[in-house]
Amino acid sequence: MSAAPLSGTDSSLNGKPTGHRQDLPKLLYEEWANYSVFYKYQPIGLVRKYFGEKIGLYFAWLGLYTQMLIPASLVGVIVFLYGCATVDDNIPSMEICHPRNNITMCPLCDRVCSYWRLSTACGTARASHLFDNPATVFFSIFMALWAAMFMEHWKRRQMRLNYEWDLTGFEDEEDHPRAEYEFRVMQKSMRKDRRAQHKVPSTSSPCNLQIGVTFAIVFGVILYRISTKAALHMSSSPITRNHVQLTVKTTAAIINLVVILILDEVYGAVARWLTVLEAPKTDKSFEERLIFKTFILKFVNAFTPIIYIAFFRGRLVGRPGSYLYVFESYRMEECAHGGCLMELCIQLSITMLGKQLIQNNLFEIGVPKLKKLIRYIRSKPGAFQEEERQKKLQRYEIDHFLEPFGGLTPEYMEMIIQFGFVTLFVASFPLAPLFALLNNIIEIRLDAKKFVTELRRPVAARAKDIGIWYNILRGVAKVAVIINAFVISFTSDFIPRMVYQYMYSPDGSMHGFVNHTLSYFNVSHFQEGKETMSPMQLGFPVEICRYKDYREPPWSATPYEISKEFWTVLAVRLAFVIVFQNVVLLMNDVVDWLIPDIPKDISLQIHKEKILLVDLFMKEEHGKIFVYESAAPAGEKESGGRANNSTAAQPRSRPNANSTKSF
Amino acid sequence: MSAAPLSGTDSSLNGKPTGHRQDLPKLLYEEWANYSVFYKYQPIGLVRKYFGEKIGLYFAWLGLYTQMLIPASLVGVIVFLYGCATVDDNIPSMEICHPRNNITMCPLCDRVCSYWRLSTACGTARASHLFDNPATVFFSIFMALWAAMFMEHWKRRQMRLNYEWDLTGFEDEEDHPRAEYEFRVMQKSMRKDRRAQHKVPSTSSPCNLQIGVTFAIVFGVILYRISTKAALHMSSSPITRNHVQLTVKTTAAIINLVVILILDEVYGAVARWLTVLEAPKTDKSFEERLIFKTFILKFVNAFTPIIYIAFFRGRLVGRPGSYLYVFESYRMEECAHGGCLMELCIQLSITMLGKQLIQNNLFEIGVPKLKKLIRYIRSKPGAFQEEERQKKLQRYEIDHFLEPFGGLTPEYMEMIIQFGFVTLFVASFPLAPLFALLNNIIEIRLDAKKFVTELRRPVAARAKDIGIWYNILRGVAKVAVIINAFVISFTSDFIPRMVYQYMYSPDGSMHGFVNHTLSYFNVSHFQEGKETMSPMQLGFPVEICRYKDYREPPWSATPYEISKEFWTVLAVRLAFVIVFQNVVLLMNDVVDWLIPDIPKDISLQIHKEKILLVDLFMKEEHGKIFVYESAAPAGEKESGGRANNSTAAQPRSRPNANSTKSF
Repeated sequence: MSAAPLSGTDSSLNGKPTGHRQDLPKLLYEEWANYSVFYKYQPIGLVRKYFGEKIGLYFAWLGLYTQMLIPASLVGVIVFLYGCATVDDNIPSMEICHPRNNITMCPLCDRVCSYWRLSTACGTARASHLFDNPATVFFSIFMALWAAMFMEHWKRRQMRLNYEWDLTGFEDEEDHPRAEYEFRVMQKSMRKDRRAQHKVPSTSSPCNLQIGVTFAIVFGVILYRISTKAALHMSSSPITRNHVQLTVKTTAAIINLVVILILDEVYGAVARWLTVLEAPKTDKSFEERLIFKTFILKFVNAFTPIIYIAFFRGRLVGRPGSYLYVFESYRMEECAHGGCLMELCIQLSITMLGKQLIQNNLFEIGVPKLKKLIRYIRSKPGAFQEEERQKKLQRYEIDHFLEPFGGLTPEYMEMIIQFGFVTLFVASFPLAPLFALLNNIIEIRLDAKKFVTELRRPVAARAKDIGIWYNILRGVAKVAVIINAFVISFTSDFIPRMVYQYMYSPDGSMHGFVNHTLSYFNVSHFQEGKETMSPMQLGFPVEICRYKDYREPPWSATPYEISKEFWTVLAVRLAFVIVFQNVVLLMNDVVDWLIPDIPKDISLQIHKEKILLVDLFMKEEHGKIFVYESAAPAGEKESGGRANNSTAAQPRSRPNANSTKSF
Repeated sequence: MSAAPLSGTDSSLNGKPTGHRQDLPKLLYEEWANYSVFYKYQPIGLVRKYFGEKIGLYFAWLGLYTQMLIPASLVGVIVFLYGCATVDDNIPSMEICHPRNNITMCPLCDRVCSYWRLSTACGTARASHLFDNPATVFFSIFMALWAAMFMEHWKRRQMRLNYEWDLTGFEDEEDHPRAEYEFRVMQKSMRKDRRAQHKVPSTSSPCNLQIGVTFAIVFGVILYRISTKAALHMSSSPITRNHVQLTVKTTAAIINLVVILILDEVYGAVARWLTVLEAPKTDKSFEERLIFKTFILKFVNAFTPIIYIAFFRGRLVGRPGSYLYVFESYRMEECAHGGCLMELCIQLSITMLGKQLIQNNLFEIGVPKLKKLIRYIRSKPGAFQEEERQKKLQRYEIDHFLEPFGGLTPEYMEMIIQFGFVTLFVASFPLAPLFALLNNIIEIRLDAKKFVTELRRPVAARAKDIGIWYNILRGVAKVAVIINAFVISFTSDFIPRMVYQYMYSPDGSMHGFVNHTLSYFNVSHFQEGKETMSPMQLGFPVEICRYKDYREPPWSATPYEISKEFWTVLAVRLAFVIVFQNVVLLMNDVVDWLIPDIPKDISLQIHKEKILLVDLFMKEEHGKIFVYESAAPAGEKESGGRANNSTAAQPRSRPNANSTKSF
């Protein structure tokens, strides 16, 4: 394998001189597709020269994204370290861990579970603080602005590349109808007489079906978690019980990951099938529709379990004495003490790391190599002639063993889903940018290696921008603002803490917060057959147990009704969402307004060239008149000189002068 | 006056033939600046021919805005009629008006006011329903979408006009530094030795000062209202008391209007002064900064009292027994029963109608006429020579009596403020679009008359778009979404009604809603010296009076504390804001995405012309080579023919071919 760069194809790269064509792949291999140069900027100019503008833009985009991830991951690490440093000053977790604070909690499952001490949740509570502290609020605002900055910087970078690559006047070439579309139209007009009975299925229903399947699977995993947890609770000794929670969470997350990985492949195929059914008219619209469909399906696939944990877990539990049951026997899951943020964090890190490690890197390296091997073996008629043949083979024959280029969609898709992980739930996982950064540093070189050594050289394509991907990025960044607002206000305990500190705390400190968030339950109010079978496990008879909710105590006029505190906290949570969303939107607009889309020097340069062109043009016109007036060969030389001059100026300044080939 | 159209200036209108130049003003006067043609489309082509693209675009924009107001005012009228039709089915106002429903309300002011019956608020409650019914929720969503549609349609119209007016390749001409700026720079460099001690004052502080003044005046008006109301309450007989509220509201609104009108003129001057101090470099940036400053000041000026009424009136009242006092003696204002929506409506209609009638029409017609008269009188040396002089005067001498053209800023500003009235508070005043429509139908012809007969003919200016105004419009439309969300959820009683109906109502109907929104107060808890002087006015001793708030009754454990209902309603209100805002933003994005910016036919046409141009260009190049190859006069004719051909094609297709003059 080693240094087997492609140089077989002889396409003239859109009329630009390819320079030392034989050396280019070698140069790319050394200066670009190499892990040892990971700290260097990519030689984008060379990449574009060899692979064309479209692939050049992808790598430029990936480079900028990786570069922008550096400050984000730095801040993320600082936020995480702040969490680590303040974990011992955190009063709520101190209160939970304090041995004298013997709060008796209600059983976590029916019959087999018993009452438990809050102090056993000490570890989870302390861990939660790492991701659930005031710094994360700051960090989500920072990341929303970061996303806006990234968009703006990309616009500028794209503009600069457009200028450097002579694309300023280039416009998308005319789209020709796809052969498949024309065939379909022809078929239709032929069938018109005999009334086509089989209608083309509408695309929205299969798409909905797929999303339905995803939800069903998420639900299945939830069921697995509930039942496993109950089973583990039943059989385990008191010592292992503490590990039960973590075991279940982790295995469930891994199962989720595997399901996501499998469905991802399925959905890719489904999206293609759906788009083929739709039969869009042109190649461009085919590509865009396919990308959009694939994106929606993969996005839903990757984020449904996470959204379930963030916003629905632990909210549909009911209360002791009137729990909510699924299929009449399984109780809905509760979150561990300290909010669901910890579980969200575990799910996020496993999904993200797993996707990156398994899907992207393993699949991306392994599968092409495997395919190459298969192709190689197939074309091998006998082993003994091998070496001889190898020598005789032409460059293009060797290259035929390579994988054909399948488009940039999977590369972009992978990065966009990662961008989703970095922005959407960053409030609960400040290390996401760091993981993304580490992945991308490898990813760039990996992709580069793939393009240089594993794939047949793709036909160079021109492009002015990254197309629909930019819109998808914008969409993700917009959704991220609202999702982060909800994560902070609903998943984390940030708002309840604030409310307690400023409205209920007797001394303005956080002391007593844990007690405030726990409601009282009289154990005699358990439904029959649901009470625990080992009421004496803690060593004394329990009359009142506690559970995490804002409800009236049993001795109030309206026992177990939702209390005033619940509504207060809810109102403050919603108010926070409104303020957060609008502040971030406003700041995004300001960023958008402060950073001009076209870099100053480029716009000046373009302006200068325009003046030059008009000048030249007018001189030429003047020269022509001069020619006609003075007629004769004397003036002709003059005119000819000017005309040549003008031709030289055209490739940069005249619109479509570059794309004349397309007509 | 009558038919004295301008035709003095002889500028060649950017090189385009003006056709029958002498007839154009007359034609414009007859076909455009005439009230009798109000139902017709404007002859925008003629307007642009005579006044240039910039003014043409203004009238095109105004025309589209007026046209778009037609569906909006239709729907608005239907919503209003729905309110009128359902006023008798409205259970809350029925309950208030029912004679048997004898709820005793707490006094509206200290000492002099007495208890009053809720049934006396019957009229206000019924009137409120006209503007506070479920249809207004629908209407605000409709108007948010309408604003998005308007933006999109304007983009398309602008594109079409750009194409028709040959502006597709036109780009803004180079900005030259303003003379004032160069003078300032020169001065600075001269003063450099003797250390300029007087610093140019920073612009932000005077701007803040102005906004401060506005707030102070709003506060003054509030004080006036409070004191007048107290005075009127004191002196009036029981019969006139019912009219007191309305009198105070109306006079206060009129005072507000007068203050707004005066401050508007002041702020215009202030904005100019501030921008001159800033000394921006180019004319374009001067204009943009001036517009932006003027807009901010005028906008704050026009909307501060309205925002006060919508969001702060009646919220800072306190409660009986512990009212909030301003300057220790004036109680903050309450809203009449049925929410502040009614008062908001009165304030809105008076401000809007008043501004339109007085400021726009009176000032716009009257002041120029007055100025013209003054200029005429000044230049008149003796009356007896008058008629003789008149005959001898040249066209341009007569035209000198006309008002000079002062830019389009006031015209746009007027319309943008109106756009604000139409979109910002439309939830409380569904008739706003209708009033705007009626005003604009007159406004178009009035402006046209002014341009044709009252002003010196402005120097024609080119422009591709309406510049900063488009961004301001977008900003207003964005702010409108969030303000409407807050008006519906906080100013109107829509959410409390919903909450009552679905959470508290015993039979799921609205019966009992009025009772539910009123809290109880034990009159013995009044502060000393604040209790009413005539406790027996209703004919019986009052022990418990009611007031509009969600608070605990006196007999609860925590008397007069904010109740659970308050927090419930608040949470639902905030949830509504989030849902409303995000749904509308999403729908706006969909509208933006569904309507392409460039009309299909125009983009096709542009594409065709581009192909034609490239074709021509290649032929010409080919021709040249041919000329050089075959040399001699035989080929020259051919080449000449092609060259001419190419020149003819240029004005449309080559970039900047039109703006060559600027170089």
